[in-house]
Amino acid sequence: MLNFDFYAPARIVFGRGTQKQAGPLVREYGFKKILLHYGGGSIKKSGLYDEVTASLKAAGINFVELGGVKPNPRLSLVHEGIALCKKEGVELILAVGGGSAIDSAKAIAMGVYYDGDVWEVYDQHKPIKKALPVATVLTIPAAGSESSGDTVITNEGTQRKYGYGSPKLRPLFSIMNPELFFTLPKNQIANGVADMMSHIFERYFTNTLHTDLTDGLCESALKTIMGNALKVIKDPRDYDAWAEVGFGGTVAHNGLLGMGRAQDWACHGMEHELSAYYDVAHGAGLAVLTPGWMAYVYKDNPNMFLQFAVKVMGVEKSFREPEEIIREGIARLGDFFKKMGLPARLSELGIGEEKLELMAKKCSGAADGPEHPIGGLKKLGWQDILAIYRSVK
Amino acid sequence: MLNFDFYAPARIVFGRGTQKQAGPLVREYGFKKILLHYGGGSIKKSGLYDEVTASLKAAGINFVELGGVKPNPRLSLVHEGIALCKKEGVELILAVGGGSAIDSAKAIAMGVYYDGDVWEVYDQHKPIKKALPVATVLTIPAAGSESSGDTVITNEGTQRKYGYGSPKLRPLFSIMNPELFFTLPKNQIANGVADMMSHIFERYFTNTLHTDLTDGLCESALKTIMGNALKVIKDPRDYDAWAEVGFGGTVAHNGLLGMGRAQDWACHGMEHELSAYYDVAHGAGLAVLTPGWMAYVYKDNPNMFLQFAVKVMGVEKSFREPEEIIREGIARLGDFFKKMGLPARLSELGIGEEKLELMAKKCSGAADGPEHPIGGLKKLGWQDILAIYRSVK
Repeated sequence: MLNFDFYAPARIVFGRGTQKQAGPLVREYGFKKILLHYGGGSIKKSGLYDEVTASLKAAGINFVELGGVKPNPRLSLVHEGIALCKKEGVELILAVGGGSAIDSAKAIAMGVYYDGDVWEVYDQHKPIKKALPVATVLTIPAAGSESSGDTVITNEGTQRKYGYGSPKLRPLFSIMNPELFFTLPKNQIANGVADMMSHIFERYFTNTLHTDLTDGLCESALKTIMGNALKVIKDPRDYDAWAEVGFGGTVAHNGLLGMGRAQDWACHGMEHELSAYYDVAHGAGLAVLTPGWMAYVYKDNPNMFLQFAVKVMGVEKSFREPEEIIREGIARLGDFFKKMGLPARLSELGIGEEKLELMAKKCSGAADGPEHPIGGLKKLGWQDILAIYRSVK
Repeated sequence: MLNFDFYAPARIVFGRGTQKQAGPLVREYGFKKILLHYGGGSIKKSGLYDEVTASLKAAGINFVELGGVKPNPRLSLVHEGIALCKKEGVELILAVGGGSAIDSAKAIAMGVYYDGDVWEVYDQHKPIKKALPVATVLTIPAAGSESSGDTVITNEGTQRKYGYGSPKLRPLFSIMNPELFFTLPKNQIANGVADMMSHIFERYFTNTLHTDLTDGLCESALKTIMGNALKVIKDPRDYDAWAEVGFGGTVAHNGLLGMGRAQDWACHGMEHELSAYYDVAHGAGLAVLTPGWMAYVYKDNPNMFLQFAVKVMGVEKSFREPEEIIREGIARLGDFFKKMGLPARLSELGIGEEKLELMAKKCSGAADGPEHPIGGLKKLGWQDILAIYRSVK
């Protein structure tokens, strides 16, 4: 086990009716003026907007609003939010939505105190000293942003999509009511599940030894998410199954499952290129890339993938032919994604050969200067990335 | 799954050499005057005291000291600590030790701001408004107090041992270096393991349905702790095994594993009586009581215990005779405790029949007024408690 520093302070207020606690919770922490940050019309159509604003008003909280967050949230709206927070003296940003609204809120939160364009933080990994507190009412379990300190923003001017993480960006509290997930379209459910599973995979697949505890936690969380995801895709009003998937998504990305382990993050890196150039859903891109990545890298640590196939995918065959088991495990993961209605090929996402080499070179940095290979279990240069892209064309 | 409110903000700084970060960490949070709180001579003998105080001095932190914490920490020392903190203007309490030092530090931390005798908080469950921040350097993995908001104090005047919990008592940060556990006596190792396992059992055994995620996390954590505990009891210098047991002890009690589940806590309640009247080690008392409790209550929820026997204890027999499996599971737990050198009978702890009825009545409150049955999976009145005590005489 490696040395580590674990810090996951986000308070999770979970269960039926909890969106009505938004106002009392903001008041409990002593904030009086907040920014309500959200996406499009879905929270207005569902009535969630009315419930949250009623709760804020009843608690005597003043708020200003900024809607319009889109999937793969844009830098321009972040700039708008920073100006609004400064002008209005906002003390906390309450994001109501999925990962996009929350990531956008985090960008605004640090931009308020950042001296310069906040894009520099993403682009040049500039350290931040301070950020406004962020809280959330989660409507899509997927990104784990409700407890993580991570944010991903797309600079639509340069077509770059970069992530940034800081303990200062961990939300103060997050409200999660699985009932709010009942009306999600099936493709969003599936994309979310692929995203949270990938958050576990990126931590799980490692060359670090002596990680029994987090191995087991990763395996339990993956099995729980997969088992219950098939239930919610069949019946999106299954509260109990959503509760497992929803809380699973939080645990997947609050940091715990990766403690003491070298992590990977190659699939996330490769997917960010797809989303930046083609605006595909992050989860859909991950569902395509992950089995391809596994097939490309497993020979570098076959026993890690044997463990995955046996303990997560439940493959029961003779260990004397481990590659059989590994390939079966990867195939079962592909079958699971298919059952969820997720794509298996880049072509299904409208991605052809055209930009594959460019994206591979952007991904490893080779397009812009010296190459920085990605990944942990196996280091991948742009040729490797291109080979993986092509393997799932 | 039940609604829940999860909050585990304690930062865990984990790994080799981390005790040397004590000073820099205190400085990072901006504190200048702290109380160093610890037990007896072991941290002086081991050199840990020197390392921590050198680190504090190098970081420019002023500190006053209060040693002398004993197992089952006493109220009188807490009173002394409160007076000292007030007099010296202490801003943070750094506990260096195991659960006793940390629990004592938490009592002092809230006593500083409590208007009256802090024992009222334990005795009458008075709410607290504020507490000094507490940080820890953990020397015994067991109580989970390094991340929990819980504290247990013994009033030596009245022989009462009560617990209290508040989110305000969650430590700011805890330093855990498994190397510090190398010199623990084997009985302390075993007691600690029994304690952390019990923290999981108290959450795991439930009548709540739809708890796949936390079921799996509990089972993984239990298996990891048991597997690695047998290694450290054989070789107390096995860093990798200690890392699993140590971090396992934190995860066992930071709250996560109990979220959304009705919890039990009958064994802890029954054990607190043993410790209050006989001053036995908490873990040793739990090792005696837990299998007795299981045998007494399993008929109220046999499938829960079937799951335990199969998934945690690895019993492989026909499900068509579930009681066989359950009894085998409980027996294997007893065997595990025996291998760890833990007692199986109250007589081994020097406890005879004399006070069993008194302790049973104190435990359920029947000795002092109307009875408040304990436990979650099965409600236990004093006769039940007495029957369990007698079953493990």
